[in-house]
Amino acid sequence: MDIDGFYEIIQMRRDVRNEFIGGPMDQSKLKRILRAAHQAPSVGMTQPWDFILVDDDAIRIDFRDHVLVERSKFSDRLIGEAQETFNPIKIEGIMESAIGIVVTYDPSRGGSAILGRNTIDETGLYSVCLAIENLWLAATAEGYGVGWVSFYQESFLCDLVGIPSPLRPIAWLCLGPISTLMEVPDLERFNWRGRRPLEEALFQNRYGERLKLDL
Amino acid sequence: MDIDGFYEIIQMRRDVRNEFIGGPMDQSKLKRILRAAHQAPSVGMTQPWDFILVDDDAIRIDFRDHVLVERSKFSDRLIGEAQETFNPIKIEGIMESAIGIVVTYDPSRGGSAILGRNTIDETGLYSVCLAIENLWLAATAEGYGVGWVSFYQESFLCDLVGIPSPLRPIAWLCLGPISTLMEVPDLERFNWRGRRPLEEALFQNRYGERLKLDL
Repeated sequence: MDIDGFYEIIQMRRDVRNEFIGGPMDQSKLKRILRAAHQAPSVGMTQPWDFILVDDDAIRIDFRDHVLVERSKFSDRLIGEAQETFNPIKIEGIMESAIGIVVTYDPSRGGSAILGRNTIDETGLYSVCLAIENLWLAATAEGYGVGWVSFYQESFLCDLVGIPSPLRPIAWLCLGPISTLMEVPDLERFNWRGRRPLEEALFQNRYGERLKLDL
Repeated sequence: MDIDGFYEIIQMRRDVRNEFIGGPMDQSKLKRILRAAHQAPSVGMTQPWDFILVDDDAIRIDFRDHVLVERSKFSDRLIGEAQETFNPIKIEGIMESAIGIVVTYDPSRGGSAILGRNTIDETGLYSVCLAIENLWLAATAEGYGVGWVSFYQESFLCDLVGIPSPLRPIAWLCLGPISTLMEVPDLERFNWRGRRPLEEALFQNRYGERLKLDL
């Protein structure tokens, strides 16, 4: 295995909004991407995720409209300069991507005694996120883009695509062919927020104690 | 990029308990693994994670002892056959791994108006999990093993490594050199729970509607 190639994927991966160029998608690539997601680790092997592939335009338009309302609400809450910085930033590519993938979490899968979820209930949610990152990296490896849309009310999305209780939607992922992957993340390019140095995120043995290891 | 090599890593990755062979770790590999984690996507570019590298044996022993108590509590709650299936399963490699990495979540990072966390507060937690999956895959690519330990009380781990409020620990990851990666996940080998067919996890446009796409 070419380890540089692996790290290249990690580094190239972006949260795509502007660069989607529509379908069609190669079905064998799509299957490999979904299989990679499904091979993620999960607490107690529950594999508590499902993937709803949304290619119906009526559903996508309804979702896009809902997201734009939530975007406005967020913008209205921002003050002064923050609002000016936020307003030019596109936060979704729902209609421009090839398909939407709604990723759901089923907390009931695996029954009542889930190995590893006995002390921390959210470990089930965590598993679904691991699957999402596998999907995201696989799509990047295949030359596709992924954009995670989170400006929505969960209840709206449940109604829209029929997600039954007690399941929860965890993400709407825009997926599809793209023109390019930007080198710099959108939120950094638009001066919303920059990247944090790795060294600031590392401690040794106790939170707040800087690393003595020479990395 | 060799795409088969990428999918090989996805497929080889395991939750390791039994196969750790202790240290030392190559420091440049460790740095690459941590950098990969830190390059994960995050809601509003908050990068809300930190990594506490635990190489102090006293801390590790305390944590291991706590985990074994929580393991017993879980075992005690199981009935009949489930308990017999569970008891031989090792659920942590805290002392056998080279180091522990406590991954934390800081919900306050990024201030009060976080782009993309406006409707769903847990998106901050989700970001930390994406970083964990990057770390896990990078370690696999480097030939190391990772085991996520979740049999603990968050308050115990906060006290043990000084995690201040409002931060939360999301995982204790055992990391280090291994003898091998098992082909079949432990929980499947020990008949706790098997792998679910991919097809069962896929729907089209509505939860419960089977995929018509020919994948």
